Amino acid sequence: MHIAFLGLGGMGQPMAENLVKAGFTVTVWNRSPASAEALRASGAQVAASPKDIHGADVLITILADDAVTENVVVEQGALTSLAPGALWINMATVSVALTEAMDALTRQLNIGYLAAPVLGRVDVATAGNLNILAAGEPQWLAKAQPIFDVLGQKTWTFGDNPAQAAAVKLAANFMLASAIETMGEASALVEAYNVGKGDFLGMLTSTLFAAPAYKNYGAMIAEDRYTPAGFTMKLGLKDVRLAQQAAESKNVPMGIAGVLRDNYLDALAHGDEQLDWAALATVSARRSGQKPKA
Amino acid sequence: MHIAFLGLGGMGQPMAENLVKAGFTVTVWNRSPASAEALRASGAQVAASPKDIHGADVLITILADDAVTENVVVEQGALTSLAPGALWINMATVSVALTEAMDALTRQLNIGYLAAPVLGRVDVATAGNLNILAAGEPQWLAKAQPIFDVLGQKTWTFGDNPAQAAAVKLAANFMLASAIETMGEASALVEAYNVGKGDFLGMLTSTLFAAPAYKNYGAMIAEDRYTPAGFTMKLGLKDVRLAQQAAESKNVPMGIAGVLRDNYLDALAHGDEQLDWAALATVSARRSGQKPKA
Amino acid sequence: MHIAFLGLGGMGQPMAENLVKAGFTVTVWNRSPASAEALRASGAQVAASPKDIHGADVLITILADDAVTENVVVEQGALTSLAPGALWINMATVSVALTEAMDALTRQLNIGYLAAPVLGRVDVATAGNLNILAAGEPQWLAKAQPIFDVLGQKTWTFGDNPAQAAAVKLAANFMLASAIETMGEASALVEAYNVGKGDFLGMLTSTLFAAPAYKNYGAMIAEDRYTPAGFTMKLGLKDVRLAQQAAESKNVPMGIAGVLRDNYLDALAHGDEQLDWAALATVSARRSGQKPKA
Amino acid sequence: MHIAFLGLGGMGQPMAENLVKAGFTVTVWNRSPASAEALRASGAQVAASPKDIHGADVLITILADDAVTENVVVEQGALTSLAPGALWINMATVSVALTEAMDALTRQLNIGYLAAPVLGRVDVATAGNLNILAAGEPQWLAKAQPIFDVLGQKTWTFGDNPAQAAAVKLAANFMLASAIETMGEASALVEAYNVGKGDFLGMLTSTLFAAPAYKNYGAMIAEDRYTPAGFTMKLGLKDVRLAQQAAESKNVPMGIAGVLRDNYLDALAHGDEQLDWAALATVSARRSGQKPKA
Repeated sequence: MHIAFLGLGGMGQPMAENLVKAGFTVTVWNRSPASAEALRASGAQVAASPKDIHGADVLITILADDAVTENVVVEQGALTSLAPGALWINMATVSVALTEAMDALTRQLNIGYLAAPVLGRVDVATAGNLNILAAGEPQWLAKAQPIFDVLGQKTWTFGDNPAQAAAVKLAANFMLASAIETMGEASALVEAYNVGKGDFLGMLTSTLFAAPAYKNYGAMIAEDRYTPAGFTMKLGLKDVRLAQQAAESKNVPMGIAGVLRDNYLDALAHGDEQLDWAALATVSARRSGQKPKA
Repeated sequence: MHIAFLGLGGMGQPMAENLVKAGFTVTVWNRSPASAEALRASGAQVAASPKDIHGADVLITILADDAVTENVVVEQGALTSLAPGALWINMATVSVALTEAMDALTRQLNIGYLAAPVLGRVDVATAGNLNILAAGEPQWLAKAQPIFDVLGQKTWTFGDNPAQAAAVKLAANFMLASAIETMGEASALVEAYNVGKGDFLGMLTSTLFAAPAYKNYGAMIAEDRYTPAGFTMKLGLKDVRLAQQAAESKNVPMGIAGVLRDNYLDALAHGDEQLDWAALATVSARRSGQKPKA
Repeated sequence: MHIAFLGLGGMGQPMAENLVKAGFTVTVWNRSPASAEALRASGAQVAASPKDIHGADVLITILADDAVTENVVVEQGALTSLAPGALWINMATVSVALTEAMDALTRQLNIGYLAAPVLGRVDVATAGNLNILAAGEPQWLAKAQPIFDVLGQKTWTFGDNPAQAAAVKLAANFMLASAIETMGEASALVEAYNVGKGDFLGMLTSTLFAAPAYKNYGAMIAEDRYTPAGFTMKLGLKDVRLAQQAAESKNVPMGIAGVLRDNYLDALAHGDEQLDWAALATVSARRSGQKPKA
Repeated sequence: MHIAFLGLGGMGQPMAENLVKAGFTVTVWNRSPASAEALRASGAQVAASPKDIHGADVLITILADDAVTENVVVEQGALTSLAPGALWINMATVSVALTEAMDALTRQLNIGYLAAPVLGRVDVATAGNLNILAAGEPQWLAKAQPIFDVLGQKTWTFGDNPAQAAAVKLAANFMLASAIETMGEASALVEAYNVGKGDFLGMLTSTLFAAPAYKNYGAMIAEDRYTPAGFTMKLGLKDVRLAQQAAESKNVPMGIAGVLRDNYLDALAHGDEQLDWAALATVSARRSGQKPKA
């Protein structure tokens, strides 16, 4: 199986490396070539452009956003450079609308399409322990499974329509942002009574909320530690907006999403777009007139 | 140590029983006497009224709400029936305002006051594994510790002002309600794309959100199972309102709390006040035009 | 007809004066006596205390809030000092809950009760041009009509239950606050595109929104002119809270009211409680990172 | 001056007719040709396609939305069929983003561009009494003024960047939607106390809110009269979304806009997309469990 892997950012780089190590033939490409060169040493071939992918029979992309995905795969010709009957696996977080458009386009080209975004940050990707959220037709899911087995600890499937996995991923990110905002509001409340938010969040993340999402972001909030950003405020806002758009096209009101959106905007208006998206919690503190710790 | 224990509801009954079993002298009282009689068999004394408490040196109350607490303890005379220098431990979820008022009142009477609400439902109370959220002056916390050791697995202290523990408890309940609402909104989103909310929540509560609160309420939401109620919609709204009041008196905006409030009201307007408060999740489904499972 | 008039604030003073001028026998009282003395010159009698009202057969109150109203009328004995079969007309903006409680209490005392809050500021009260929003039993409305004819340009009646007029007044104030917030948000939007909010609001208040409420508050917002306060931020928040409470007891969600509440809290947290309540519009500007004009 | 006028919907038809009557040479085109034929009788020329516009030196469009505008003007070639140095006046409500894109495109083509959306419905357009909200470079505004003088009672200018008028129009529509929602929430509140919303709104639209927007929509809400639609729910949602997008690109949080969005979605999920956008008020009633009048 010859895999073309486009997009070697923080997540894509270790994912591609794991595929090379697992013995797949892998051709890689990245907008800035340094990341690709690092993989050459591991045994990957390096493409000069998105269409220089030698008739690969699987295309994996994990690109920055909708626009970059469409540009690289469609406009720069990756899709039409694949072998007949190939499969495209889009592992990025993109809109439901793009997912539906790419699903339609690939059908016209007799190419398979899977949406397979992931849960997990860079260290999890490196360890091959991602959770893979996949949707698409069964034969394509079956074809992709050996790849998913290398990249992740578990593949969760959500139906035969790629839009389903796209929606699930956006809903999951919405839940993360909502957990962050909730901790921010609750922390502002207890801090107003001179209870340290670290004491408060420490208690809850040891008891009712003893889950990775809460422990991770709770610690960042407790320490006002928002750099380096694992995922920026700007990207957080983008994903909330994509969740809202997915909801809007199905007439689903999401009250909390509206709160998230406004508070992300408030943060961006105060210059915080490059902080980790857990800095959403600072908005409740600022609105309450509370000062961050020195 | 002679303990007067007032309020033998779902939580109070097993808590009082644990104190009796641990060898404390316990006098109990409850508005409806059947619960008290059940404890007599275990060795408790039964008071005929809130003031019939034999000069107890510790008063523990876990009563329904602010009004009942004030009525039983103040108007019906429990407070003035205690031994000189006694201690009142209020383990119910009540308002910060009542907490501050009772703190002031007990100071005038030279009685100690602790706010010590708990996390955990009936089975946890029965097992003596509650998490106790306590605040008050150190000497009173020290005096209460042997009692807390019987009732709970851990005592978390939040300062020397009882209002601090009251605020922490309201903030914790806000976080639970927010988690429920978040799952409701996210479920409505994925269901709109024909992804079963059970599949979606099952995945998340096995991964990022693998915490007791999410597992417990996530399973209820997945199954549309809201009876019997562990904690009713009506009480859920009450606690959100208390959190809002506590926040308001310190000028803390809480955007999610406003969403919760409106959605609880929507549910109550549709006749759901006696369902478990996880039924908050049904509001997003109904607003989206989705039907509950048969 | 002998009228006891309690509460000589900005509104009460000119209202009482108009009643004196119209020939009614009026006994006045105010917490700070200077206002009462000013009316003595016009021909009013001055009471030494709320119960020093000489068996008046109509009691009019326009006091600061629920607590002051209950204190002055009930605890300080005004109600029990009235002539048998007297009428109490409460012209202040108070809660629905207090209105219902006072309605019940006056029935026990065989005293009539009308809620009759007003629309209009001090200059309108001085001119006798208030709009009076009244509810209560028809015979009491009839008895009050000659008084209303002096104080206002028109009496609007909303039913035989005083709570109805209380709810109408709170709904009207909610609409004013919502109009202010709407102008604040819209102004922040256009200012972000370098359109002066004065140009924008000037256009709209000359066309679609050519109404007194918009013209008045729109001009204040355009000029960032929030002192002197006709009605403070703090009182604005109070009235929004009363509207929310009235709504909550009938299970009415009000999404905009939640936005108003949070933005008033944000303003209070930034020290603006004594500004005119139109300063609510500054919150949208601040959250957007916009600076007020010098 | 030869004017090409594309888009003969409810608004465009009478506007084009007024231009013909005023003596301008007008070539018209509409997707469904019947509207164009009606204008032929008045003296207009009828184009067979958007590019069949004979080298007109002014292009006026008032098309359904962004996509139709871009399709007709750019893809179907209207823009490149104009005379050298021509002017395009876009009088539709479109996004700020499209406005910016069209402004950039026209600069490349050496064509002038004005955004000039209007306030007023069909009867106002027919009477030539629109309020025109215009922005663009002064020389183009000057060239357009004789046209605006025919179509409107007044031209309001908001700067030399067309995006400014686009933003102003979206902000104005946001204010209308907010006024509708506010009346809906306030009506649900008073109806819960058995006050007829017609009585309530009648009072307010005769006093504080005696403005065209409130009178018009207040009467519709009072009578639950939402057909025929002057402007549909679906279009209302679209304009709120465009306002949110314009705000988002400048980091402006708009709390009320979020409420509007969710309540429009709720209404659409209940099948109301073809009602007049004043039917937004029905959402508060439904959420409160109130029944519409028979």
